[in-house]
Amino acid sequence: MSREAILAADVGGTAIAVGLVTAEGAVLVQRQASTRERGTAVETLDALLTDLVATSRAEGIRVVGIGVGVPGAVDAEAGVIGDDVQNVPELARLPLAETLRSRFGLPAFVDNDVNALALGEWTFGEGRGARSLVLLAIGTGVGGGIVLDGQLVRGAAGYGGELGHISVNFDGRPCFCGGQGCLKAYVAGPDIAAEARGRLKRRSDSEILALAGGDPAAVTAAHVFGAAAAGDPLAASLVEEVCQALGAGLGAVVNGLNPEVVLVTGGVAESLKPLEPAILRWTGRYAFSRALASTRIAVLSLDKRATVRGGAALFLYETARKPGTAD
Amino acid sequence: MSREAILAADVGGTAIAVGLVTAEGAVLVQRQASTRERGTAVETLDALLTDLVATSRAEGIRVVGIGVGVPGAVDAEAGVIGDDVQNVPELARLPLAETLRSRFGLPAFVDNDVNALALGEWTFGEGRGARSLVLLAIGTGVGGGIVLDGQLVRGAAGYGGELGHISVNFDGRPCFCGGQGCLKAYVAGPDIAAEARGRLKRRSDSEILALAGGDPAAVTAAHVFGAAAAGDPLAASLVEEVCQALGAGLGAVVNGLNPEVVLVTGGVAESLKPLEPAILRWTGRYAFSRALASTRIAVLSLDKRATVRGGAALFLYETARKPGTAD
Repeated sequence: MSREAILAADVGGTAIAVGLVTAEGAVLVQRQASTRERGTAVETLDALLTDLVATSRAEGIRVVGIGVGVPGAVDAEAGVIGDDVQNVPELARLPLAETLRSRFGLPAFVDNDVNALALGEWTFGEGRGARSLVLLAIGTGVGGGIVLDGQLVRGAAGYGGELGHISVNFDGRPCFCGGQGCLKAYVAGPDIAAEARGRLKRRSDSEILALAGGDPAAVTAAHVFGAAAAGDPLAASLVEEVCQALGAGLGAVVNGLNPEVVLVTGGVAESLKPLEPAILRWTGRYAFSRALASTRIAVLSLDKRATVRGGAALFLYETARKPGTAD
Repeated sequence: MSREAILAADVGGTAIAVGLVTAEGAVLVQRQASTRERGTAVETLDALLTDLVATSRAEGIRVVGIGVGVPGAVDAEAGVIGDDVQNVPELARLPLAETLRSRFGLPAFVDNDVNALALGEWTFGEGRGARSLVLLAIGTGVGGGIVLDGQLVRGAAGYGGELGHISVNFDGRPCFCGGQGCLKAYVAGPDIAAEARGRLKRRSDSEILALAGGDPAAVTAAHVFGAAAAGDPLAASLVEEVCQALGAGLGAVVNGLNPEVVLVTGGVAESLKPLEPAILRWTGRYAFSRALASTRIAVLSLDKRATVRGGAALFLYETARKPGTAD
C-alpha cells in the first residue's frame, strides 16, 4: 500500500525545518538546516524540499502537496509574502506558493509561520476538535494565530493575529515596531534580556549576572528566568512583570474573542511553563471570570515536530476549503 | 402585493426600541418605550411586539420572524440570556428566543445587543459588503461586535467581542468588572465623568464645572467634551487621554484582527466624531502602518434606526445560516 504525505516546511530566521507529514499528523521524516546553508533562504528551502522528494520516492511515499510557514504577513490567497520580513528579508514580495507549484508540480500553500503553527495545533495537537483557538508564539518575537469557528483569521492585509503588537500598557515600553507598550516589548526573549541589562546598571549583585558569567552583554531571557527561580529579587520582579503583561494580553484574547482554547508556545514558553499558575492568576485579573472559565489556557512545551506539522495542517486547511485543488 | 418585514427589537437599560424592518433594511415602523413602561422589561417588550404585530396586520405587512438584541452575554444557539445582565437584571437566564417563538408563532433569535448592532452595520450600513468588521459601541458601557469572514464571533460562552474589557493599561484605572486598565474605564461616559469629578477636586476653575452649572455631581461626559472644545486645559487633557486609550484599543483590533472595517458608535461617539483625526493619530501610534492602511476606521453619528436594524440583521444572519428556519 502506497503511503501519502505532505511536504511541509517552516522557514525561520536561523533555521529551516522540513518534513514529510501524513494527513493524520505523523511526521515520517524531518530535516533541518540553517537558513542560509545552501545559499539564500529560498535556495536552502528548495534544496531541502528536493532532497525530501527524493527520499519520499525512495521510501514509496506519494507526496500530495506542499505547505510552508514563513515569517511576516502573507497574502495567503495569492501565496505572496509581504514586504516586511524582519528575519528573512530575502523572502519579501516573493510569490513563493506559485514558485513551489511550478518547481515541484504540486499544489502549494504559504502562510505566516504562526498561522501555520496555530492550524497545526488545531488540526493535530492541543486544540484538536476545538471550534476556536488562539495560539501565541513567544520567542525572539511574538506572533499569534487565530482560528475561529474553523476559519483562520488572516485579516484584510494578512496582519490578522499579530497579537504580539497589541498594546497592554499605552504609556509603556517603546517597541521596535513604533508602537508603545506592545505585549512583545514585555515578553519576547530579547526584550526581557534588554530590560534586565538596563536594570543591572543600577544593581550589579544580581544572580542574573552570575548566570551570564559576569558579562551584562551576555544576559539572555533564560538567565533572567533562571535567576528568578533561584530567588533573585531583581529577576523575580522582572519575571512577575512578564507574567503580568502576558496575563493582560491573554485577558484581551479571552474577553475579546472568548476562544475555547488558548495555547502559549515558542522558545520562551519553555521558561514560562513552570510559571503557568502565575500567568493564569494575572489573566484572571484582566479577564471576565465567566469568559475565562469557558476558555482553556495552556503553556505548551516545545515540540520540534510542531513546526512542520503546521505546514501540513496549512495544506489540509487550504485543500479542504478549495476542494479539487489537491487533485 | 404583500410586503414582508422582520419584527426587530433592542432591549436596553433605559429604553426598548422595536420596529418592522424589511430584508433590505428599510424601517417601516419604529416605536420606543421606557424599559419598565408596561411592567418588567420582558412585559414591555411583549406589549410593544404585540402592538407591532397588530400594526403589521392593519397595514398588510407579513411578519416573517423576530430578532432581538439584549445586553450581556447570550447563548445565541440556545437563545438563552446569560446570568449577568447589569442594566436589565430581570432578563438573566431567560430562554427569550423560545418564549418569543411560542408567544408569536414565529422563528425568533436573540443575541447580545452590540453583536446585533454589528450585524446591522455589516448587513445594511457602513460595513456593507465587507468581509470583516469590528464595531465598538461606546456609551454607558463599551461593547463590541466582531464579524470575520462573514461569521459573528460569539466565543465559547458568548463573551466574544467584549472589547470594552481588554486592558490597554495593565497598571491603569480599576474597572467595575474587576479588571484594570480596561478600555471602558477610559472611554465610557460615566467613567469620563467620574475621572473629571476626581480631577475637579484639585482644580475648581474648570469650564467643565461651569457647563455643569457649578455642581460637580452633575458633570457628564458631554460637559467634558464641551469644555475641551472650548479650550479648557483640564478637559482637553482628559479628552486627549480618551483618544489615546481608544487609539490603543483600536490599535489592538487592527493588529490583532486586521478587519476591513472598524466602526465606533454609541452615545459617546457623537462627542467623538469631531475628534476622529486625534483618534486616528493615536491609533497610528499603536497599529502597524500597513495593517492600518488596509483597515477603514470610522466614527458613526448615531442613527436611531441602527438598533432595530440590528435585530433584523440578526434574524437574516441566523436564517441564512440555518436554511428552512424562516419557513
